[in-house]
Amino acid sequence: MNWEQIDECARAWLKEAGSRICETFAQQLTIQTKSNRKDLVTNVDKETEQFFIEHIKNTFPQHRVLGEEGFGDDIGALDGTVWIIDPIDGTMNFIHQQRNFAISIGIFHDGVGQLGYIYDVVHDELYSAQKGKGAYVNDSPLPRLQPVSVSEAIISLNTTWVIDNARIDPSRLTPLVKAVRGTRSYGSAALEMAYVAAGRLDAYMTMRLSPWDFAGGLIIVEEVGGVVTNIYGEPLQLLEQNSVLVAKPGLHEQIVKQYIRK
Amino acid sequence: MNWEQIDECARAWLKEAGSRICETFAQQLTIQTKSNRKDLVTNVDKETEQFFIEHIKNTFPQHRVLGEEGFGDDIGALDGTVWIIDPIDGTMNFIHQQRNFAISIGIFHDGVGQLGYIYDVVHDELYSAQKGKGAYVNDSPLPRLQPVSVSEAIISLNTTWVIDNARIDPSRLTPLVKAVRGTRSYGSAALEMAYVAAGRLDAYMTMRLSPWDFAGGLIIVEEVGGVVTNIYGEPLQLLEQNSVLVAKPGLHEQIVKQYIRK
Repeated sequence: MNWEQIDECARAWLKEAGSRICETFAQQLTIQTKSNRKDLVTNVDKETEQFFIEHIKNTFPQHRVLGEEGFGDDIGALDGTVWIIDPIDGTMNFIHQQRNFAISIGIFHDGVGQLGYIYDVVHDELYSAQKGKGAYVNDSPLPRLQPVSVSEAIISLNTTWVIDNARIDPSRLTPLVKAVRGTRSYGSAALEMAYVAAGRLDAYMTMRLSPWDFAGGLIIVEEVGGVVTNIYGEPLQLLEQNSVLVAKPGLHEQIVKQYIRK
Repeated sequence: MNWEQIDECARAWLKEAGSRICETFAQQLTIQTKSNRKDLVTNVDKETEQFFIEHIKNTFPQHRVLGEEGFGDDIGALDGTVWIIDPIDGTMNFIHQQRNFAISIGIFHDGVGQLGYIYDVVHDELYSAQKGKGAYVNDSPLPRLQPVSVSEAIISLNTTWVIDNARIDPSRLTPLVKAVRGTRSYGSAALEMAYVAAGRLDAYMTMRLSPWDFAGGLIIVEEVGGVVTNIYGEPLQLLEQNSVLVAKPGLHEQIVKQYIRK
């Protein structure tokens, strides 16, 4: 595989897609709900996914695409080269804030992550990684993540998970919330993973993500020595929904052992 | 009072202070704790406050200053012109992220807010307002805030307040968390108030802020028609700690009546 060529194409398409998204800021959005009233999609999500699929299929006809909005292939297994794409991660932020959203792409070959991208369009910050070659934000290399203790950690965790919910007993998380230095919540899994990779957050935790939410971030975070698993410390399944715990080394183990599995 | 001259000085000092803060990013910070292990202060907080006080005292010797780090005056009443300054609001973000912090300034005359500033240094976004003359982000006027319902609102609320805590029964807030479209938390009260003023958040709520955390935001948010009170809907006390609820009109009343006071 010519990963350099694929990387070059992905970067060019990300920049062009980002410009197109910014051009829509002055336009009226078409907003629909999907699985529930909080699960939003706009015409821009759909058009952006179609933009990527068209370019990928024209340039790399043998590659397959798994996209959030369903315009890609029906993927049952990860053989060959598969692009996993979220055209706008953080659609609610896109609608309400016109910032704090990202395009996320993970490119896998036979199930192994090779190239990862999270593009914070509005701030023009492209987080990227190529397997074995380090991670970057724009042209700056991201340093390897160093261990940190729970008491000095800032973790990203939404209020949803510390009140009654269908996915986790909040009493597992409340001692963690009390022990950490602080919690944040930005509303974009991709950006929150990018922030862990960049050292701005020490951990990010959520109870349900789809593959397109974490595919790009997984490759980037692992490349700087961060740990990405489900909240029980088990590997993520790339074709299913998962809980997700992304953290610096040491901190990840401490959260799993002393809080989640306790 | 020549508010135009004061405004011009405040803007110039904000920009210079912002540049100085950015220059410290490459340096080692001196970090200390204040009231508790999560209450942090750095040499940059202190130097920035001293920078403002020196300029204010030289230019407007009759003005008084209330600053977070305590280098200003001992203020027992709000007669005359008082600058209320937080040199770095979101110190934890400043330390961990080198972003998502702001300089906040509110200038009051005989207790009435006249000029408000929140300067997002890293993104070079200056939110400002002059009483009766509207609010701006940089040179763009901020539109008047329109009512929104709870079910379509994004509110900023830290996990701290929906688990056991000393300030509010979490059961008052959990129905609100379930009813809104989403929650966020950014770790800087000033920025969160600026985001409400800019329409990116529909409300921001917290259980304890000091005057310097909300003084600038109060003036800016009110200028675009937002409502700023304590969580019970009562006026904020400018020389005391307060709970704070900042929200769009309509939404503010709904949160107070249907959730907090219910």
